[in-house]
Amino acid sequence: MNSAAALTGVIPPVCTPLTPDHEVDTGSLIRLVDHLLDGGVDGLFVLGSTSEVAFLTDAKRAVVLDTVLGHVAGQVPVLAGAIDMTTPRVLDHVAVAVRAGVQGIVATAPFYTRTHPAEIAVHFRMIADRAGLPLYAYDLPVAVHNKLSAELVLGLAAEGVLAGVKDSSGDDGALREVILGRRGSFSVLTGSELTVDSALWMGADGVVPGLGNVDPHGYTRLFRAASQGDWEAARLEQERLFQLFELVHVGGGRMGGSSSALGAFKAALYLRGIIDHPTTALPQIPLDESEIARVGKHLAAAGLL
Amino acid sequence: MNSAAALTGVIPPVCTPLTPDHEVDTGSLIRLVDHLLDGGVDGLFVLGSTSEVAFLTDAKRAVVLDTVLGHVAGQVPVLAGAIDMTTPRVLDHVAVAVRAGVQGIVATAPFYTRTHPAEIAVHFRMIADRAGLPLYAYDLPVAVHNKLSAELVLGLAAEGVLAGVKDSSGDDGALREVILGRRGSFSVLTGSELTVDSALWMGADGVVPGLGNVDPHGYTRLFRAASQGDWEAARLEQERLFQLFELVHVGGGRMGGSSSALGAFKAALYLRGIIDHPTTALPQIPLDESEIARVGKHLAAAGLL
Amino acid sequence: MNSAAALTGVIPPVCTPLTPDHEVDTGSLIRLVDHLLDGGVDGLFVLGSTSEVAFLTDAKRAVVLDTVLGHVAGQVPVLAGAIDMTTPRVLDHVAVAVRAGVQGIVATAPFYTRTHPAEIAVHFRMIADRAGLPLYAYDLPVAVHNKLSAELVLGLAAEGVLAGVKDSSGDDGALREVILGRRGSFSVLTGSELTVDSALWMGADGVVPGLGNVDPHGYTRLFRAASQGDWEAARLEQERLFQLFELVHVGGGRMGGSSSALGAFKAALYLRGIIDHPTTALPQIPLDESEIARVGKHLAAAGLL
Amino acid sequence: MNSAAALTGVIPPVCTPLTPDHEVDTGSLIRLVDHLLDGGVDGLFVLGSTSEVAFLTDAKRAVVLDTVLGHVAGQVPVLAGAIDMTTPRVLDHVAVAVRAGVQGIVATAPFYTRTHPAEIAVHFRMIADRAGLPLYAYDLPVAVHNKLSAELVLGLAAEGVLAGVKDSSGDDGALREVILGRRGSFSVLTGSELTVDSALWMGADGVVPGLGNVDPHGYTRLFRAASQGDWEAARLEQERLFQLFELVHVGGGRMGGSSSALGAFKAALYLRGIIDHPTTALPQIPLDESEIARVGKHLAAAGLL
Repeated sequence: MNSAAALTGVIPPVCTPLTPDHEVDTGSLIRLVDHLLDGGVDGLFVLGSTSEVAFLTDAKRAVVLDTVLGHVAGQVPVLAGAIDMTTPRVLDHVAVAVRAGVQGIVATAPFYTRTHPAEIAVHFRMIADRAGLPLYAYDLPVAVHNKLSAELVLGLAAEGVLAGVKDSSGDDGALREVILGRRGSFSVLTGSELTVDSALWMGADGVVPGLGNVDPHGYTRLFRAASQGDWEAARLEQERLFQLFELVHVGGGRMGGSSSALGAFKAALYLRGIIDHPTTALPQIPLDESEIARVGKHLAAAGLL
Repeated sequence: MNSAAALTGVIPPVCTPLTPDHEVDTGSLIRLVDHLLDGGVDGLFVLGSTSEVAFLTDAKRAVVLDTVLGHVAGQVPVLAGAIDMTTPRVLDHVAVAVRAGVQGIVATAPFYTRTHPAEIAVHFRMIADRAGLPLYAYDLPVAVHNKLSAELVLGLAAEGVLAGVKDSSGDDGALREVILGRRGSFSVLTGSELTVDSALWMGADGVVPGLGNVDPHGYTRLFRAASQGDWEAARLEQERLFQLFELVHVGGGRMGGSSSALGAFKAALYLRGIIDHPTTALPQIPLDESEIARVGKHLAAAGLL
Repeated sequence: MNSAAALTGVIPPVCTPLTPDHEVDTGSLIRLVDHLLDGGVDGLFVLGSTSEVAFLTDAKRAVVLDTVLGHVAGQVPVLAGAIDMTTPRVLDHVAVAVRAGVQGIVATAPFYTRTHPAEIAVHFRMIADRAGLPLYAYDLPVAVHNKLSAELVLGLAAEGVLAGVKDSSGDDGALREVILGRRGSFSVLTGSELTVDSALWMGADGVVPGLGNVDPHGYTRLFRAASQGDWEAARLEQERLFQLFELVHVGGGRMGGSSSALGAFKAALYLRGIIDHPTTALPQIPLDESEIARVGKHLAAAGLL
Repeated sequence: MNSAAALTGVIPPVCTPLTPDHEVDTGSLIRLVDHLLDGGVDGLFVLGSTSEVAFLTDAKRAVVLDTVLGHVAGQVPVLAGAIDMTTPRVLDHVAVAVRAGVQGIVATAPFYTRTHPAEIAVHFRMIADRAGLPLYAYDLPVAVHNKLSAELVLGLAAEGVLAGVKDSSGDDGALREVILGRRGSFSVLTGSELTVDSALWMGADGVVPGLGNVDPHGYTRLFRAASQGDWEAARLEQERLFQLFELVHVGGGRMGGSSSALGAFKAALYLRGIIDHPTTALPQIPLDESEIARVGKHLAAAGLL
């Protein structure tokens, strides 16, 4: 199943727009997907951390899957996160995603429980068996409290269990270890949206940038420039996006770090007219009006408003 | 809803027996409940970490709830864990547990996402509102990667949001801060099964001991002795249980720390003839025969075989 | 060398009074020692964390040793911290302390470097060899970022390398493992000043309380009560000291956690007339006047002013 | 004092060769310096973590300073680490280094004590005042257990307190934040020896590579290629060095992680005939013969033997 060409390019983790009463806003979600496709993205990743998957009930996860897959209709590959604590619960999510017609699954190591590399290997093997689709390991120590070692990732790649990795660890030395150690078709995607040019430079195949919701055109310009060997243009685009990324800090210390970032992404999409409400899922503290206004200033400075 | 008398005594977190093909073994579960009731426990806590809740699908969680509540039929209060990443998902579990007829809900702070005390407060308030039942905060930093501060717990207690706390942090200074700072009816339950006598000595109301699955009679003897002021007897019983607790280490370093402990509890229940299979949930590495035999030696030394 | 009777009782870690220009204030130090001896303490621990040893140059450490040992003149045993990153540097401090005439050495595992249990064992063996005096392991994960396992401590105790342990880990389950696992004369001293009654109840031999600088009489009353089996009196004294301990929080979040606690201890000693200046070592942010006034209110509430 | 041109290029942290009885092997140290100068390095950093500074007594630190400065005699700038727990102790090391004639000081934030950004700022200000030399902040969370924020570093740079930063955090997003946020002359040096090409690509000024002891020629080729805009050559050299870096793992899990790396660097220097003994400082577990032989195989594969 992993014999297909490796996934490459810009695959943004799609935000999940919500109505003021916290239902999935499917109209906004469709407009967001169109905005991303218009930006030239190479794939979509739904039900990831940036999609607030941790906050979505199973029913809402299903709405997201059906809405996005129905609308995309094969224009680009859609990957779905199957994010839950351990294998049996992840398998339930995998079954739903497969039925919905996704092109790949993204899963973390077990969390909440104290796990072990031998158990993580069993976990990914069982998921790949059940999915019958390319499986991407999601390395996100800030959420999972566990770093996937290059040794483990490369071993599971060699077994044919993993089709790729989405590395959001911020550890570019370890990222390089996977890049240099892989054999055959294996997608290395960075989730570190501030070092995309350098990750591509090292040999990464693509990027899964949360900020790509706000400015997909920027990330695809970055990726195209790098693909064409115009590294200087790639770097300048990355530096522009770096400045834009400052918007994630508007919520400061009065809420969780991810609440501030997710709130800012949604506020930006709202201010750009792409989604109808900047609402984030509960119990996250929402950005207030002045914070949203500051997001607007960042957009203006980046020429996005 | 929190005006009732505070919960006290021994409330073990009930293991979830599994068949070799990883279904809930309801016959064994009923025998385990009878074993605990025979041991004189004051309540039961289902779907906690020791119940392998992180590994149970929603369907299996429902089987556990229905099996235990149907069998207990009001003999003792039954608390249920509503363990998931954030509020919306926890609320789904709460609804199922309430319908099943539990007497209280146990929930952790949000995990996987990076959260904040203000968000944790919203989280517990929403759960208490929805449940309409006593809500117990579950403080388990080893899983949640966040310690609930005494200030937060006491504030939510004063608001009437929390009816109690299950403290598995191992931080007995902080435990004491809650004990000395609470006002009115508020249950402080320790999850640290090796320092029960001293927690009760400080003023804790009860204990939620994983090892209580294996030896409920021991923990109830400990609690009764302390209640009657016979602290020397309480300490001797605790020291005996301390020795027995060594069985959690039989799995050594070849599996996760919780896999070893849960595997040992189930192996002990199997060897004592209470459950039919020592099976633990996947992807946990199971104990092998020699490790199970070593569990048997611990039981024999404790006079439990 | 460890055949002597185990050290027991109240052994406060002695604060290091400083002049406004950050020299050791030897006059105040002598008055502080007298205050502690008057409080009935069983020993003194100089150059520990509460002594701001991390902030004292070698020259100042020597002044402290000479001042205290010259004044105590054998009335009670004096232990000295030999606190540095690794063995060779610790050995230099040991040599100075031995020449000064201390009765025991206290040392942590290596820090700054990433170490290993096998290396920690070599470390303690080399220190014990050099010192020729009882050696106490100092278990302080908040500073050393490493928890000494009961297995390691008990192994080194059995070898005769360690004469005892000062456990400031806050992990009372692990404390109990050492208490129940030791053989022969081996001092278990708790550094957790809020759970002294329960640590003694479990079998600990004594306490090294930072707050004992402020109220040594309280801690010796607690210890005497426990020694005489009057556990109720011990608990009430501990609960009184628990309330007093609140003073460590007056500095709030505008400085490091240890700066606030050390500043409060020194402010209390200053307000009680025992030392001349509340000065703490640089670069710690000092308490301001309003914070010092709040320390005074805590003292007044405890009847210490 | 910081008006000088920013420090750039390859500045290896110089290993400290030891005799079998753990004295500084000055003859080997001089040969190592010559080896590095022959490799074309742009400066030397003595008494850093790779120099085993944590294991060197003050007397040995002085021997290193005098030996290296006497031999280098101004051919390249020499920076010295002033590594200790807090400001007063660091200042003692600064005084020695200044007298010895170094060209710059490298210091970490306080460690062992729990500190605070406001205290870290005081710390660096006091060191810069005393040194009268360019001061480089050493960001090494694996040792200091504290990440220097870009905000703090840039603020101290703007004040003129810091002349640069040596970033060994492995967090290349944060590295970039400093690079893009700095104004005027401020040296950004990466200590992440596996991502040097990408750090230079982002705008870093140089590198402080532990592996540069073993293969200084490789790192200077890498840096020269990047400086001349031949990024492809830089990447290929980095990838070669990446493979060589595997030697740090020969010690596996039977010793501390830094012991394995430092042991491998010294074994490589010994096998290359540059130093007389592969001895590392106590209490580190030394590499055994088979591990040293495996280091040799890595050298051979890299064409260095």
